[in-house]
Amino acid sequence: MSDSAPPSIRALVFDVFGTLVDWRTGVAAAVERHIKPLAAAVDPAAFADAWRGYYQPAMAPVRTGQRAWVDLDQLHSENLTRVLTDFGIPAIDQDTRNALVAAWHHLDPWPDVADALGHLRSTYLIAPLSNGHIALSIALARRSDLRWDAILGAELARNYKPAPVVYLSGVAALGLRPENVLMVACHSDDLAAARGCGLRTAHVARPDEKGPGRGEAGPGTEVDFAARDLGDLVGILRRDRSAA
Amino acid sequence: MSDSAPPSIRALVFDVFGTLVDWRTGVAAAVERHIKPLAAAVDPAAFADAWRGYYQPAMAPVRTGQRAWVDLDQLHSENLTRVLTDFGIPAIDQDTRNALVAAWHHLDPWPDVADALGHLRSTYLIAPLSNGHIALSIALARRSDLRWDAILGAELARNYKPAPVVYLSGVAALGLRPENVLMVACHSDDLAAARGCGLRTAHVARPDEKGPGRGEAGPGTEVDFAARDLGDLVGILRRDRSAA
Repeated sequence: MSDSAPPSIRALVFDVFGTLVDWRTGVAAAVERHIKPLAAAVDPAAFADAWRGYYQPAMAPVRTGQRAWVDLDQLHSENLTRVLTDFGIPAIDQDTRNALVAAWHHLDPWPDVADALGHLRSTYLIAPLSNGHIALSIALARRSDLRWDAILGAELARNYKPAPVVYLSGVAALGLRPENVLMVACHSDDLAAARGCGLRTAHVARPDEKGPGRGEAGPGTEVDFAARDLGDLVGILRRDRSAA
Repeated sequence: MSDSAPPSIRALVFDVFGTLVDWRTGVAAAVERHIKPLAAAVDPAAFADAWRGYYQPAMAPVRTGQRAWVDLDQLHSENLTRVLTDFGIPAIDQDTRNALVAAWHHLDPWPDVADALGHLRSTYLIAPLSNGHIALSIALARRSDLRWDAILGAELARNYKPAPVVYLSGVAALGLRPENVLMVACHSDDLAAARGCGLRTAHVARPDEKGPGRGEAGPGTEVDFAARDLGDLVGILRRDRSAA
């Protein structure tokens, strides 16, 4: 390696909701099953979007330290109450609430994910670095037979991205330095925060994350790599290693 | 399940040093390689035993809150300095120190471990709940192709067993209640602490852990299950489920 070569990438850490799994389709399906019978006029995808819309603001008090860390099941449950009110749906029973919150544990990956992760794992340590808690990450991994080296992210840090401690606790847990870790996400704000912590960054396009054409088709911030999907990232990293 | 049936076990969490991996043989081999050339009279196994002997006292200030959590690499390095002094060995260079500390990342499992974990994973969530940090646990898993659902333990809790937070943070991360989690260890003190937190417990005999005949051949505390080895535990749990 020449003196000017970039530091080698030893590990890849992944955003999960949107980047690896299609939350909108999965959550809308659960809304179809559990809410439609109570409120026939509800548009399940619109309900899913509205629920997800409360996601960032719900994490804010944890990021600022105003609220002790609670996991996403708790935040999803609180946000569900808000969305039900917004949609004019009367109170639901606890079993229905639990089933809806659990929908976030039972999401399917985009079609390119499983094979690509298998390839990447042969070269790199790989781990989710998600705002999802460990039990949720385990459930997603078990559902799709994803093999992680560890589960990093919000629960380890007891904070939520983009708080720097989430990225830095993940890097430390891998026993690496930030420049040896590549953050992979379809959200530019996540990548900008990771880059601010010294990690390398790869954007993965998910143009339909929030519905057709309502996702990031490319990075809106400076990144080391930009990929069409995770399979494309496998090839990009392979060529990058060959060139080094 | 009848009303009197015990709560079902959903996850198994494992002590690692001694229970899953043979630390003494691996560390003694590293001492043979790195210390013998400097001090021909050293008995590598005795050196390994002495090094491990400083393990529990080194964690005590973290458990009491007198010292912020530091990982085992740090404690192993500090303890190495003590053992070198005890053995009258002059200062070693940093590369040699690093190689010796890294020996704790490169330990082999007992012969019954890999197959048994594969079987157990088909029925239960499985995770190490070790005083080893995440990077160390990843290294051991990669070395022996062990597949964990998550890596729990000291780094997640930022404390050391037998502090209750280590067991309870692991249970919480699995999204379970203590009675649904089985702690598996070859050390009765670890199991007694887990039981005190409400976990179920399984003792695995490792009669030669600290040298021939110098390990626990059976539990010295009340446990739910006592196994000859991890393969035996697979059968015991299978029969327990059939009987439920």
